[in-house]
Amino acid sequence: MGRSPQHVIGFDLGGTKMLATIYDPDGKAIGSSKRKTRGDQSADGIFADICQTLFKAIAEANLTPEDLAGIGVGAPGPLDMAKGILLATPNLNLRRFPLKDRLGKEFKCPVVVENDVNAGTYGEFVAGAAKGFKHVLGAFPGTGIGGGLVLDGKLYRGATGAAGEIGHMILQADGPLCGCGQRGCLEALASRTAIAKEAIGLAANGTSPTIMVQSGTDLRRVTSKALKKAVEAKEAPVIALINRSATYLGMGIANAVNLLNPEVVVVGGGLVEKFGRDYLKTVETALRRFAMPGLVADVKLVAAKLGDDAVARGAAALLLVALAAESTT
Amino acid sequence: MGRSPQHVIGFDLGGTKMLATIYDPDGKAIGSSKRKTRGDQSADGIFADICQTLFKAIAEANLTPEDLAGIGVGAPGPLDMAKGILLATPNLNLRRFPLKDRLGKEFKCPVVVENDVNAGTYGEFVAGAAKGFKHVLGAFPGTGIGGGLVLDGKLYRGATGAAGEIGHMILQADGPLCGCGQRGCLEALASRTAIAKEAIGLAANGTSPTIMVQSGTDLRRVTSKALKKAVEAKEAPVIALINRSATYLGMGIANAVNLLNPEVVVVGGGLVEKFGRDYLKTVETALRRFAMPGLVADVKLVAAKLGDDAVARGAAALLLVALAAESTT
Repeated sequence: MGRSPQHVIGFDLGGTKMLATIYDPDGKAIGSSKRKTRGDQSADGIFADICQTLFKAIAEANLTPEDLAGIGVGAPGPLDMAKGILLATPNLNLRRFPLKDRLGKEFKCPVVVENDVNAGTYGEFVAGAAKGFKHVLGAFPGTGIGGGLVLDGKLYRGATGAAGEIGHMILQADGPLCGCGQRGCLEALASRTAIAKEAIGLAANGTSPTIMVQSGTDLRRVTSKALKKAVEAKEAPVIALINRSATYLGMGIANAVNLLNPEVVVVGGGLVEKFGRDYLKTVETALRRFAMPGLVADVKLVAAKLGDDAVARGAAALLLVALAAESTT
Repeated sequence: MGRSPQHVIGFDLGGTKMLATIYDPDGKAIGSSKRKTRGDQSADGIFADICQTLFKAIAEANLTPEDLAGIGVGAPGPLDMAKGILLATPNLNLRRFPLKDRLGKEFKCPVVVENDVNAGTYGEFVAGAAKGFKHVLGAFPGTGIGGGLVLDGKLYRGATGAAGEIGHMILQADGPLCGCGQRGCLEALASRTAIAKEAIGLAANGTSPTIMVQSGTDLRRVTSKALKKAVEAKEAPVIALINRSATYLGMGIANAVNLLNPEVVVVGGGLVEKFGRDYLKTVETALRRFAMPGLVADVKLVAAKLGDDAVARGAAALLLVALAAESTT
């Protein structure tokens, strides 16, 4: 009997963890493996961990590498997508790393490498909160704010594969400084980092005793957990910061809705997972307030469903899309 | 010999003028007709003018209606595109007017009705400044600011045909009031109306004698011509207003570039036609300053080429796209 590979792996290469999941031909997860990303290793060390994680997932699914139709990878940008090269990955010691070639040689199968936010949005589109829609905007507020687009039922990458940068949309000309060097970007107004910057001010002036206890006035110590504790302690100034950030996220989404006229907006990521329904409600109120009425009337705003599985799920689906495109050309 | 229609008409229904142009199978204009739009007539009166203009263009081209493969119309929104109904056209006495059906009956040929900014962007894509590109953003600053998108070589309309509203992207949270009721929209910062609002302030306080002479302090009398005279008189405060508006336009385009990753941005409309190269240079400087470096590096910013012909040209091309899609289904 010849080889008849029908299973695919989705792989999520994150800055803190990596996850490999095997999907059967029906898209069902039948085995997975996860480990901490040790970003301070050499590139070869990181690559060895990646391979180990993939091999372990394959074994979990009682398969061998020969059973794989290919590997779909979601990785943080910037990427050279066509060549599958990680150009300069934050928190990972990878510079111009040819992940696609290396994995292709190791596993002897097709590999696609996609931006992780794109893969996550696509995962929600094929199997999550945006299933059944054709025009999808994904927004993922966390340390930064990532965005992804599915237009006319296809992942939209733009001219050079960099589309979807909703986080660097300027919403407040000359507003607060962003990590990108501009001022007033959505990310500088609504990310966890933006909230943290103001929270340490509250700690310093005594209006947030909880943040003072949890984080002091050290920006990098203001975790989502510390913010959550302050919210649970009903500290009004911290609650106001979270609401303000959700309102700006809604405004940024409104701008994108006016431009793209999607059917559904999927919001996921750290802040949604931490602050849940209240946060999303505030985002939605702002979206409906700031978008054009005719454009927003039918738009659904939904919470991401797949959580940590979204990127792997989407990357696996995008591999199948790439294989199908190849077989028709 | 049976009928073998190979020519198409593009029709631009504007608030101040209407234009019909006949294109031969090579896309060459071979006859056209133009007249003032008399928007205060009854709907039937306006429709009669539309038909007259079309018949005249057909005669100009030495053709008869039987020679037409169809009519492509560009009209101001809001529209029900699928049904070809003009819902409520500003400056025209048309409410829920079934233009597609009426023209179809009159000329016995297929008709498509498209948003005029979309048609204009598409015209620049097929035959103007964006010819040869696949991913195009069109921005047209004038009384308002319209936008159109060509993505992957196709006009992008979004879920309900309303995509492209770059003018109501909020750039300055809580900024100046916009005609749409929001604050800080691109249109409220960079349209001719936005410039005019500040120019009458300059007239009133004596810093722009030219505007005072041309327009007094009456907002509706501040025409592009009046502004141009003040610029020619080297009135620095008026020049600063125009530059500021161009800078905000560049910022708005930067936001759209970050989201959509186009190859080319076409800028046309009243302000470009009036203030030309200097205006565009300021727009481009702002675009390159405010967009993400990796995304904007390869983006070209170009002036629209087709001027008043863009909408008719694009509408004619979109008719052909619709006919081709029908013939394959």
